[in-house]
Amino acid sequence: MNAPTLYERLAIIGLGLIGSSLARAVMRYGIARHLVASDRDPKVLDRVKALGIAHSVEADPARAAADADLVVLATPIGTYAELGAAVAPALKPGAILSDVGSVKGAVIRILAPLLAPGIHLVPAHPVAGTEHSGPDAGFVELFENRWLIITPPPGADQTAVDRVAELWRRTGMRIEFMDAAHHDLVLAITSHLPHLIAYNIVGTADDLETVTKSEVIKYAAGGFRDFTRIAASDPVMWRDVFLNNREAVLEMLGRFTENLAALQRAIRWSDGVALEALFTRTRAIRRSIVEAGQADPEEEKRRQDAAEKAKTAARA
Amino acid sequence: MNAPTLYERLAIIGLGLIGSSLARAVMRYGIARHLVASDRDPKVLDRVKALGIAHSVEADPARAAADADLVVLATPIGTYAELGAAVAPALKPGAILSDVGSVKGAVIRILAPLLAPGIHLVPAHPVAGTEHSGPDAGFVELFENRWLIITPPPGADQTAVDRVAELWRRTGMRIEFMDAAHHDLVLAITSHLPHLIAYNIVGTADDLETVTKSEVIKYAAGGFRDFTRIAASDPVMWRDVFLNNREAVLEMLGRFTENLAALQRAIRWSDGVALEALFTRTRAIRRSIVEAGQADPEEEKRRQDAAEKAKTAARA
Repeated sequence: MNAPTLYERLAIIGLGLIGSSLARAVMRYGIARHLVASDRDPKVLDRVKALGIAHSVEADPARAAADADLVVLATPIGTYAELGAAVAPALKPGAILSDVGSVKGAVIRILAPLLAPGIHLVPAHPVAGTEHSGPDAGFVELFENRWLIITPPPGADQTAVDRVAELWRRTGMRIEFMDAAHHDLVLAITSHLPHLIAYNIVGTADDLETVTKSEVIKYAAGGFRDFTRIAASDPVMWRDVFLNNREAVLEMLGRFTENLAALQRAIRWSDGVALEALFTRTRAIRRSIVEAGQADPEEEKRRQDAAEKAKTAARA
Repeated sequence: MNAPTLYERLAIIGLGLIGSSLARAVMRYGIARHLVASDRDPKVLDRVKALGIAHSVEADPARAAADADLVVLATPIGTYAELGAAVAPALKPGAILSDVGSVKGAVIRILAPLLAPGIHLVPAHPVAGTEHSGPDAGFVELFENRWLIITPPPGADQTAVDRVAELWRRTGMRIEFMDAAHHDLVLAITSHLPHLIAYNIVGTADDLETVTKSEVIKYAAGGFRDFTRIAASDPVMWRDVFLNNREAVLEMLGRFTENLAALQRAIRWSDGVALEALFTRTRAIRRSIVEAGQADPEEEKRRQDAAEKAKTAARA
């Protein structure tokens, strides 16, 4: 039933939420003849073995990468410089180096200079996730019907790009290609700024003296709760996103702040017309997202069920 | 199986998401011998009749209120002055006037002066909702396990307060009592500011020239999507919330903006330590909310199923 094996030897470095979900998909869909998992945390590798989501584990990233057709970095971007320097000399001619980072311009700037000619850099970003981290949080359904963005550097090898696209297509993702700079701008508004805002509102609530923490928690269903989910995302991964997509995030943040000042003024001066106009406009966008199949309740339920099952299995 | 009838005649004015959900609960749990539904929109009353979620409908709010033991206003707060003036003279001695508004100080300031002695004002706020509006969007499970906040004015009649509390307890809500001013502060941070921020980020995304609307929609799963849900909430209701809770919202917004400026500075100067410290702290709050049973995935699923069923039934 499965399509033919795509890779002889595939290495995933970093078995967190995304890396371990990819590992599960590689195993389930028979994408590689041999999948080797590498992580600097020995406890993570023990879990990978226990979960059976790779053919072998290897603590040393260079040894994991040796002889691999494809190496996927799935660690926070702050590790790329050191990890790239360790892995690059081990790569065989014709090998592909890819990643799953949420920023792409910085990734190319860090990794490209480390690679010998004949090694193909194909940066990719699966736009999917949950607020949970670690190898136990992963699940194979995470990628279904979500978008993968590939940002091929100028002059990238088309065959290598196609092979990376096919890997992710088999996990259920829809594929898009984009210039790295444009990717970073799109993600700054659709992902990075939302996370920053969510972290900030949760932090603000946590600091209040007039409202107790237990009140914030009790009445979270009024809207606050939606923000706490993404404000529970991995701190180190997100620190590295902001450090590596500074310009685009500051640009979007500037616009956000400017608009917020206008809203503040509308509230202060009781400008109901301005408030209602904005609140009406934003409603249409939600409808478009639902129509684009990116917020289907049935699908979300299936995804959440799978995430829950993963967590329950991990506790068992 | 049901507890004894609580009210002889109960009037709900405004059959939107909350009003119609309450009507459904009143009918299902036999809370009133007679439930009369009133709405200024005749199409809404037609739907109420078709759905069978009230014993009778009445276009004129004063006639609906006449002879009622309890009248519940479930309309945007901007209508309270006019509606209160129409309803108040029709209320019989001993009747209770309550509401479901998201702001409580302003509600007391508007309604209290309109009421004759012997009429009991018991403002209440069910902290529950979805992004959908109208009589078809309501469902009886909306209130289950959520908090109702009652803000009795000074000198409120305890029997009247108890009767309103019991009504909501029978819908499955948990009851809390609070001073109106404190309520407005708590809700400013847990509900009003989150909505304002969500409206603002969705509006900001809508205005971009460098990123297309279709890109924003496609990649919404990166975090943006969580904001669009609450930014799809009823525009008029939310306009009225901000106009009527100005001071508390501006206070919370000031703190939010101050903290956001600090984050902006941390990004500009690559202060990874500050970013990681905040992102780690916010993670704990999510955990507390989950532990407090206010974000239980199983429960959310049941609630969402019920909301979906309501929508599907409405389309049929």
